[in-house]
Amino acid sequence: MSPPITLLTDFGYKDHYLGVMKGVILTINPSAMIVDISHSVSPHNILEGALILSNAFRYFPEGTIHVAVVDPGVGTERKAIVVSGDGYLFVGPDNGVFGLLYGQFQHFSVFELTNPSFFRSTVSATFQGRDVFAPVAAYLSNGVLPAEMGRETPKYRSLSIPVPIVRKETVTGLIILSDGFGNLLTNIDRYHLQKLGDGKKLRIAVGKNVIAGISPNYQTVGRGELLAVIGSSDLLEISIREGNARETLGLKQGDQVVVCR
Amino acid sequence: MSPPITLLTDFGYKDHYLGVMKGVILTINPSAMIVDISHSVSPHNILEGALILSNAFRYFPEGTIHVAVVDPGVGTERKAIVVSGDGYLFVGPDNGVFGLLYGQFQHFSVFELTNPSFFRSTVSATFQGRDVFAPVAAYLSNGVLPAEMGRETPKYRSLSIPVPIVRKETVTGLIILSDGFGNLLTNIDRYHLQKLGDGKKLRIAVGKNVIAGISPNYQTVGRGELLAVIGSSDLLEISIREGNARETLGLKQGDQVVVCR
Amino acid sequence: MSPPITLLTDFGYKDHYLGVMKGVILTINPSAMIVDISHSVSPHNILEGALILSNAFRYFPEGTIHVAVVDPGVGTERKAIVVSGDGYLFVGPDNGVFGLLYGQFQHFSVFELTNPSFFRSTVSATFQGRDVFAPVAAYLSNGVLPAEMGRETPKYRSLSIPVPIVRKETVTGLIILSDGFGNLLTNIDRYHLQKLGDGKKLRIAVGKNVIAGISPNYQTVGRGELLAVIGSSDLLEISIREGNARETLGLKQGDQVVVCR
Repeated sequence: MSPPITLLTDFGYKDHYLGVMKGVILTINPSAMIVDISHSVSPHNILEGALILSNAFRYFPEGTIHVAVVDPGVGTERKAIVVSGDGYLFVGPDNGVFGLLYGQFQHFSVFELTNPSFFRSTVSATFQGRDVFAPVAAYLSNGVLPAEMGRETPKYRSLSIPVPIVRKETVTGLIILSDGFGNLLTNIDRYHLQKLGDGKKLRIAVGKNVIAGISPNYQTVGRGELLAVIGSSDLLEISIREGNARETLGLKQGDQVVVCR
Repeated sequence: MSPPITLLTDFGYKDHYLGVMKGVILTINPSAMIVDISHSVSPHNILEGALILSNAFRYFPEGTIHVAVVDPGVGTERKAIVVSGDGYLFVGPDNGVFGLLYGQFQHFSVFELTNPSFFRSTVSATFQGRDVFAPVAAYLSNGVLPAEMGRETPKYRSLSIPVPIVRKETVTGLIILSDGFGNLLTNIDRYHLQKLGDGKKLRIAVGKNVIAGISPNYQTVGRGELLAVIGSSDLLEISIREGNARETLGLKQGDQVVVCR
Repeated sequence: MSPPITLLTDFGYKDHYLGVMKGVILTINPSAMIVDISHSVSPHNILEGALILSNAFRYFPEGTIHVAVVDPGVGTERKAIVVSGDGYLFVGPDNGVFGLLYGQFQHFSVFELTNPSFFRSTVSATFQGRDVFAPVAAYLSNGVLPAEMGRETPKYRSLSIPVPIVRKETVTGLIILSDGFGNLLTNIDRYHLQKLGDGKKLRIAVGKNVIAGISPNYQTVGRGELLAVIGSSDLLEISIREGNARETLGLKQGDQVVVCR
C-alpha cells in the first residue's frame, strides 16, 4: 500500500486545477490515496499555507507525502524541492511554504528537483502543481527516492514567527492566524504562560478588551461572550463562545496581545 | 476491506482541522476510506448538521461509520457517544446532532465513550474531533465494537422537527432548510399532501406569494418563475426555476407555508 | 482495481447532495475511488461545467468515468447519456455539459440511458444525480458496458466556443472564463498568436487597458501590475501579478480582447 499524498494549495475549489493534479497523480500511481488538507489558503499567502501545514503534518502517518502549492513565483528561478524530515516527505516550491518546518524537525534534508524524468514532458510557466509537484509526489509514492530526483542542497528558504516577549509580569505576543470560526490564534503558547503562574488569575489585553483569566473551555462564559483559552495547538486563542471573535473585535493578523498577572 | 468513514462538521474548508482528523484516522487505519459529507454546516448549528446527516446517512452502505462534529459544547460534560442504528454507526457529541435519527431507526443503541484507550493520549478541551471522535471512528473501522468503548446508556439528546398541522382543507407547515440552490425545503411531505387530493389543484401560500399547483419538475414554469415541487427527500419544496428562491423571496427557516385546496 | 469516478456538479459543498451521490456509488461498488473535480460550478451554468470538464478530463488515467451533473432540466425529457470517448466514459444529462468534448475526441459514441435496471428503483424528478447518474457510474466502474445500459444515439447536444478572428495584423477574441485567482482566460491560443510573430512585440487591448508584450511568467512585471501570459491550457490569459484581474479590471466572460502587432 502506498503512503497517503496530501494536497494543500491556494487553488480554491471551483476550477479544474485541483482535479487536474489528482488526475496526474492517479495516472502515475493508480492506487494513490489522495487527501485534501485545504485549498482555501488565501491566494499567494505563503505564510498562511506554512502555518496550516505546520499545524497538520504530524497527525498523518509516517511516510506521508505532503504537497504544498502556494506558488506566486511559479515559472521563475525559485527552486522546486523535496524535503525529507522526521519520516515525512514534502514537495513544493522553495519559497517559504515549508519554512516553518525546518526549526521543528529533529533531522531533515532538502533536495532540489532537477531531474526532468519525474516531471511531465512539458513544464508550463504557470502551473507546476500539475507539471512538477503532482508527478514528483506520485513517483515518491511509488517508491522513488528523493536522491534520484535531484541533489541535496544546503540552501532553502526559512520562515519564522515572531517569538513573544516574556517578562516577569507580562508576556507580549501577537495574533498569527484566525480560523474559520473566527478564533484568533496567538504566538503565545502554554509554556510561555506557565511562567506567569495560575491561568485563572491572568489578564489578557487584546484591542480594546481585557479578558479576566484563561478559561478551560468555551462554555465557561455565556453565549456571545469573549474568552481566552489554550487551543488545540497549545497556543493561546481569543474566542467568542458560539460567535466570531475576528469579526466582532475587528482584529487581524499581527495585532498585539498582552498577558499580565 | 474496512467500511467507509464519513465526516460532517462545521469546520469549513480552510483550516488544518479537517486534514488533522483525516491524518489521525489514517494513522490508526491506513486503509480507511474517508468520505466528506459536508464541512460547511453553519458554525455551531446543531440542527442544520442533524438535518444534513438525517438526509444522507441511509444512502451509504450498511456498516458505514458516520462521524458528525458540530460541537459548541466541546470540553464540557456533554457526553461523547457512539450510536449503533439500523446497521450504521455514528460517532460524535451527544448534543442533538444525532437527535433526528432516533425517531427514524427501527432499532438502535447508544454507548457513552468512556474508555480512553481509544482516544488520543491527551484530549484537548477544544478539538475532540481530533482527540476523541476521529480515533474512535478509526478503531471502529478496524473492527472494535462499540461495547468495548463504553457502556450503553438510556439517556441521549433527541431533536424533533415540528409536525405540520393537517386539516381537512389545509396543511400548515414551515421552512426547515434551504439548500445551496436557494430551494426552500418544508416539513410538509408527500403523504401530508395526498390527503388534500390532486396536487395540480392545490394552492401554496408562502410569504406574500401564492403558487398554483404542485409541479412535476422545475421546467413546467418559465425561467425565473416560482414553483412548488416534491423534492428528492419527498418534501414539499419552494423553488425558482434556475433562480434562488431564498434570496428572491427573502424567506428563511421557520417561515410558514400553507397548502390549501 | 476499478477505474476512478470523478464528480463535477453545481451542488456546492454544504448540502447532503454530494455525500448522497458518493454513498450511492459506494453501495454499488464498495471499492470505488471517487475524486471530486469541482462542486462549485455556478448554479445551472452548463457552459462553465463544460469548460472545467474539458480542461480536466484528459489528465486522468484512461478508463476514468467522469460524472457531470449540472442539470437545470432534470426531470424533463432531456436525455440521460453515457459518452464513450478516447478511452474515457462520461455520465450525465445531454444538455451540453459534454458539448465541448465532441469536437476534441478522435472517436466517440453516445448512448442514451434507457435501461432502468441500472437506476435506483425510484427516480425522482429533481435529483437524478442520486437516482440515475451515480448508480450508472458505479455499475460502469464494476465493468458493465455502456451498450448494456441503452442504445447508441446519433443525436446529442454540442456546444462551441466562438473562434477568434485572425487577421494579418490582429487576433480578436474574448474572455471565456475567469479562475479563482481572478485570471481571465481567453479563447485565443498559442497557435493563433504565432501568426503575429514575436510575443514580446505584441500589444494586447482589453477593456481600457493595453498590455505591452506577452510575459513568459507572472514575475516579469511588478506586484499588482497587469500582464498577459500563455497559461497552462495554452490559452492567452490576462492576469495581475499576485492580484485579481477580474475584480480590478471589472471584466467578465464575453468581453473582447484584441491582440495586435
